[in-house]
Amino acid sequence: MPHPTAGLPPPRPRRQLSRVSEKAPWITYRPELKVLDCTIRDGGLINHSNFTDEQVRAVYDTCIAAGVDYMEIGYKNDPKSFPTDTYGPWRHCEEEDMRRVVGDHNSEATGLKLAAMADAGGKSDWKHQIIPAKDSVLDVIRVACYVHQISEAVEMIEHCTALGYETTLNIMAISVVADAEIDQALEIGAKSAAGTVVVVDSYGNLYREQIDHLVRKYMKAVEGTGKDVGMHAHNNLQLAFANTIEAIILGANRVDATLLGLGRGAGNCPMEILLGFLRNPKFKLRPVLDCIQNTILPMKQQFDWGPSIPYNLTGQMNLHPRSAMAWREGDTPDDYLSFYDQTMADV
Amino acid sequence: MPHPTAGLPPPRPRRQLSRVSEKAPWITYRPELKVLDCTIRDGGLINHSNFTDEQVRAVYDTCIAAGVDYMEIGYKNDPKSFPTDTYGPWRHCEEEDMRRVVGDHNSEATGLKLAAMADAGGKSDWKHQIIPAKDSVLDVIRVACYVHQISEAVEMIEHCTALGYETTLNIMAISVVADAEIDQALEIGAKSAAGTVVVVDSYGNLYREQIDHLVRKYMKAVEGTGKDVGMHAHNNLQLAFANTIEAIILGANRVDATLLGLGRGAGNCPMEILLGFLRNPKFKLRPVLDCIQNTILPMKQQFDWGPSIPYNLTGQMNLHPRSAMAWREGDTPDDYLSFYDQTMADV
Repeated sequence: MPHPTAGLPPPRPRRQLSRVSEKAPWITYRPELKVLDCTIRDGGLINHSNFTDEQVRAVYDTCIAAGVDYMEIGYKNDPKSFPTDTYGPWRHCEEEDMRRVVGDHNSEATGLKLAAMADAGGKSDWKHQIIPAKDSVLDVIRVACYVHQISEAVEMIEHCTALGYETTLNIMAISVVADAEIDQALEIGAKSAAGTVVVVDSYGNLYREQIDHLVRKYMKAVEGTGKDVGMHAHNNLQLAFANTIEAIILGANRVDATLLGLGRGAGNCPMEILLGFLRNPKFKLRPVLDCIQNTILPMKQQFDWGPSIPYNLTGQMNLHPRSAMAWREGDTPDDYLSFYDQTMADV
Repeated sequence: MPHPTAGLPPPRPRRQLSRVSEKAPWITYRPELKVLDCTIRDGGLINHSNFTDEQVRAVYDTCIAAGVDYMEIGYKNDPKSFPTDTYGPWRHCEEEDMRRVVGDHNSEATGLKLAAMADAGGKSDWKHQIIPAKDSVLDVIRVACYVHQISEAVEMIEHCTALGYETTLNIMAISVVADAEIDQALEIGAKSAAGTVVVVDSYGNLYREQIDHLVRKYMKAVEGTGKDVGMHAHNNLQLAFANTIEAIILGANRVDATLLGLGRGAGNCPMEILLGFLRNPKFKLRPVLDCIQNTILPMKQQFDWGPSIPYNLTGQMNLHPRSAMAWREGDTPDDYLSFYDQTMADV
């Protein structure tokens, strides 16, 4: 369906897609489409990045076996802001911690590139924390910012690019940003060294036509720059997968997903559903199911994620999921009515 | 987004929609859009329609309080095929059983029309079972058939229409039917007395572009007849809500949903997500959450439904969910790998 040639914006010059009939494009695929697993990074927002080495290794091995293109192994954020007595190693991604799991990781040999996310706004001590790419197992730094932090984000991108990394610009919480501000940020981002600009629906609020509006806007902003557009969805309204498909149809070539949708709040686009949909034969579903069954599902005993009703409500109301997360961790996680009443009283 | 005027096919003559700016149609609504709750009917496929009177009454009261337009209270199928020692009253919808719950139900006063579904293929003794509408609490008979049963379905529709019912044609399992057969069935259906023809994705297999293809086809088939197009989605790929939105955008004016998505296998489009999205102020979310919390959620102790991985897999493979239902009821419901291997060996 989407994957293939159906993309509305004509392929950028470097893409030589054979024109497939419009009759059933969904049975073919677009080779440029790359999948990023952010299970450990986004999932780290529900457990302070306290995954065991075994859990991270299981996800790593799975990404390689499944043909996933990128794995985001955590945050490259500052231990001073995220102290090690509370936050696990995947909040800081020190080289020695990563190497304990991935060894000397070879992206050529494995077909997998490793990424970490660095937050703007003082959360990352990026000037000191990020070492030259040639000395790191990391291939990619994804820079996350709120729209007002775009200037620092671009500094970070230039810095990391100079260090030899592939970089991305992830402007968060886009559903609460005015169009004029998005336009301005994209104008700046389009001139940056970032290889990809990602549409980030942090609140899981966006419906189909809004996704269309944004993806078209992002595609237009990067037109002619050689940059890709990405999609990072949250599943508050059970739309993470659907919105990811929609972005793909419109030409997005970088999409994020997580195993069993593990991620903050309602979670993300489920990898197992995404890979079952993509028709590139390099993607393999079985290893993904193996990891879900043996590594991810058991975490449901400890952590809550997924599109339960409190997350539906914050998504519908275009709110940060923090109130729903607190509710789900409280004594009455299934008292939807009280959460509804509280939420309505607040808005 | 969808609801409003965004519908691609121009409104039929009887619709006088004010033309809203295309800039943010998602904040308005289309008054013609009607919502049908099929919690008890589709949910009856996982418990042999053995709901208690209290459960059915809770759903009925909720539909009225929430502004839902139709409630499908069960099947009008034959007790000889579905014996009363196994199947509950909501498989047959005898007048006395329904009246125990809904009294003399007045659709004018409540704003709610009651529907029952009758299956073609000998499952319903429709010639004898269905009494004149003026003597029934039912307002609507929805006729379900497989494509090869279209002739009997049309007979049923004519019969029920003559008895005074509003009728619909629900051709099931459309994802395994050849286009030429769908076209033929729609040509017949368009000439029938059915007020609505429903796109039914029984296997939860259809992706966005396939939904587009089908909804456009159905819209074209009924063009000029005054009939509506409906959407009945299953949630195998977490697309039930997204596909329902898509159908609405394309002009479908009848959509099915269930409380907490209760329904066969992966379940249906969740009413709580749908109503949170529709902008018609007549729809109220709070009573829906009340019923979910107090009536539907407790059923999770007894029954399994929702888009778990076995249902993802049958959806992806375009299979009837029966193997996944059996797996989820078995000893190892979360052994996804074995289910995957079994499923792949079978196809």
